[in-house]
Amino acid sequence: MNNNRNRQVILKSRPADIPQADNFEIIESGISEPRDGEILVHNIYLSVEPAMRGWVSSVANYSEPVRTGEVMRSFAAGEVLLSAHPDFKPGDKVMGMFGWQEFATVGPAAVTRKIGEDDLPLSLSLGVTGLNGVTAYFGLLDVGLPRPGDTVVVSTAAGAVGSAVGQIAKISGCRTVGIAGGPAKVVQCRELFGYDAAIDYKSDDIESALAAACPKGVDVYFDNTGGAISDVVLRHLAVGARVVICGTASVSSWNPWPSGPRAERHLLVKRARMQGFVIFDYAHQFEVAITRLAQWLREGRLRYSEDVLEGIEQAPGAIASLYRGENTGKRLIKIR
Amino acid sequence: MNNNRNRQVILKSRPADIPQADNFEIIESGISEPRDGEILVHNIYLSVEPAMRGWVSSVANYSEPVRTGEVMRSFAAGEVLLSAHPDFKPGDKVMGMFGWQEFATVGPAAVTRKIGEDDLPLSLSLGVTGLNGVTAYFGLLDVGLPRPGDTVVVSTAAGAVGSAVGQIAKISGCRTVGIAGGPAKVVQCRELFGYDAAIDYKSDDIESALAAACPKGVDVYFDNTGGAISDVVLRHLAVGARVVICGTASVSSWNPWPSGPRAERHLLVKRARMQGFVIFDYAHQFEVAITRLAQWLREGRLRYSEDVLEGIEQAPGAIASLYRGENTGKRLIKIR
Repeated sequence: MNNNRNRQVILKSRPADIPQADNFEIIESGISEPRDGEILVHNIYLSVEPAMRGWVSSVANYSEPVRTGEVMRSFAAGEVLLSAHPDFKPGDKVMGMFGWQEFATVGPAAVTRKIGEDDLPLSLSLGVTGLNGVTAYFGLLDVGLPRPGDTVVVSTAAGAVGSAVGQIAKISGCRTVGIAGGPAKVVQCRELFGYDAAIDYKSDDIESALAAACPKGVDVYFDNTGGAISDVVLRHLAVGARVVICGTASVSSWNPWPSGPRAERHLLVKRARMQGFVIFDYAHQFEVAITRLAQWLREGRLRYSEDVLEGIEQAPGAIASLYRGENTGKRLIKIR
Repeated sequence: MNNNRNRQVILKSRPADIPQADNFEIIESGISEPRDGEILVHNIYLSVEPAMRGWVSSVANYSEPVRTGEVMRSFAAGEVLLSAHPDFKPGDKVMGMFGWQEFATVGPAAVTRKIGEDDLPLSLSLGVTGLNGVTAYFGLLDVGLPRPGDTVVVSTAAGAVGSAVGQIAKISGCRTVGIAGGPAKVVQCRELFGYDAAIDYKSDDIESALAAACPKGVDVYFDNTGGAISDVVLRHLAVGARVVICGTASVSSWNPWPSGPRAERHLLVKRARMQGFVIFDYAHQFEVAITRLAQWLREGRLRYSEDVLEGIEQAPGAIASLYRGENTGKRLIKIR
């Protein structure tokens, strides 16, 4: 292996808010042989996701920030090349925290899972049968507690998490309303992901569109954005509503901490609940969700959209363009 | 009865926010004989509570607003004088929505409960064994879900609801931290209600006082105030915290709707929950709570403080002075 070079995307400087291309640098380094208990993974797909903004932020968060000079933290999917761990053998497909790099020498703690659903494309293990899918599954079902007949509103409704939320809500017997940015995503919401209604927050009057789409109010709001979109949705909560706080993509910076309309009174009058949700707390249950998601995929009941960039050179600018809304589905980087 | 006159406090004009003395007027009217199914109640205590601001507000709320010219909506405790209903007989003590007036002719829907705990003072049926006590009981135990060892923070900690919350949390094995306004209330929190720590939001630096009192963070926040106090507490939530939204006493007006620091990120990072709570949803379980509260009172494990004004003439100004923090316990008006 020593003749091989490993291209890695490292964090060069800490961004003030959304990481830009020039916060990263591509370097070459050697590849370490796996020591006892480790495996060497050859990455095929690297993931790009909104949460990465938090991973490189120095603001208090639910994980330690990536240090400058380190390989960018990332989920990736690839193949085991060498194994010094009894649970893995060369040829196994694995998904885990392998970073934005070609080769990763890691211990078992970095492996999120060994991929069992060989009949499905490997890329899905980073999307609809990966963290995005299980986030949708547990966030909606465990925190949102949808009941048949409920109206479920989803922000970033065409996104990797949102599109799965909308479809799982439909499978659960709910009426679904998606909020997305731009006509292409709204069409995708209606035609690909089967939302009963879709609202373009960039051109529609959200307030009246939401009132029209949710005449009985919003029973579950799966919130991927926070900010101004959420401020409107909160005004339309039904009695007993559940708001799942999954992400705050619309808030570009938490320094200084942004203000907004106070939520207390909506929650009080409507006996409603807002609850934050971090998918890593559900790690011990991932396979339960993935088994169901894979089955829905095979049955054609769960659809997805991917936005695949080619080559590791695309990685540094990929987060910023995601925040600009330039992707049309789960963003991935295919590196071989 | 026709020779008797009934003094009533009516809503003369709708207040912009906190109802003031001149929003009310005391008038005299006749007393109606109870028709079939009704009872005539002679009120002894009238209640004064923060929620009355909402009852006279035209802003969307969880009950219809009191109309101008109508008797001010209020809980009251009194004695049945005449009964045309099989469940009630003269001499029964009752508590219910009898309004700010001397005599009330009402149907059974207005009666919250017939008072069974004859060994306890009647006034308690409007406080610690009344709506305040059951609000504390269900808000803390059903929504806050305290566990032994949790740190429970209570705003308006010396108030009618807050003081019961703090003590029920202690009975539940929690560490309790009260936030109250002024040195007298802080002393009451520590000495009468047994809080482990008490913070004076008027003179202490809440941020550092709360950090010192809650070194492991806040597991349950029972929020009676909203506003700036809550903004500080949210910064100190522990992972998995529960915030019970019971009232918004510190927000003097919702028109225009006030802004504040966005809560989403605290909830997300801490996997925390904020939930609104309206006690009337628990009406079918009131007796369960009151049985326990009464027993804790008899055992000396639950203490209370009352602030009794004498005479119905005190009613019109009683809400405004409550919002100025001038009461030192559950505010009542004794009218005979």
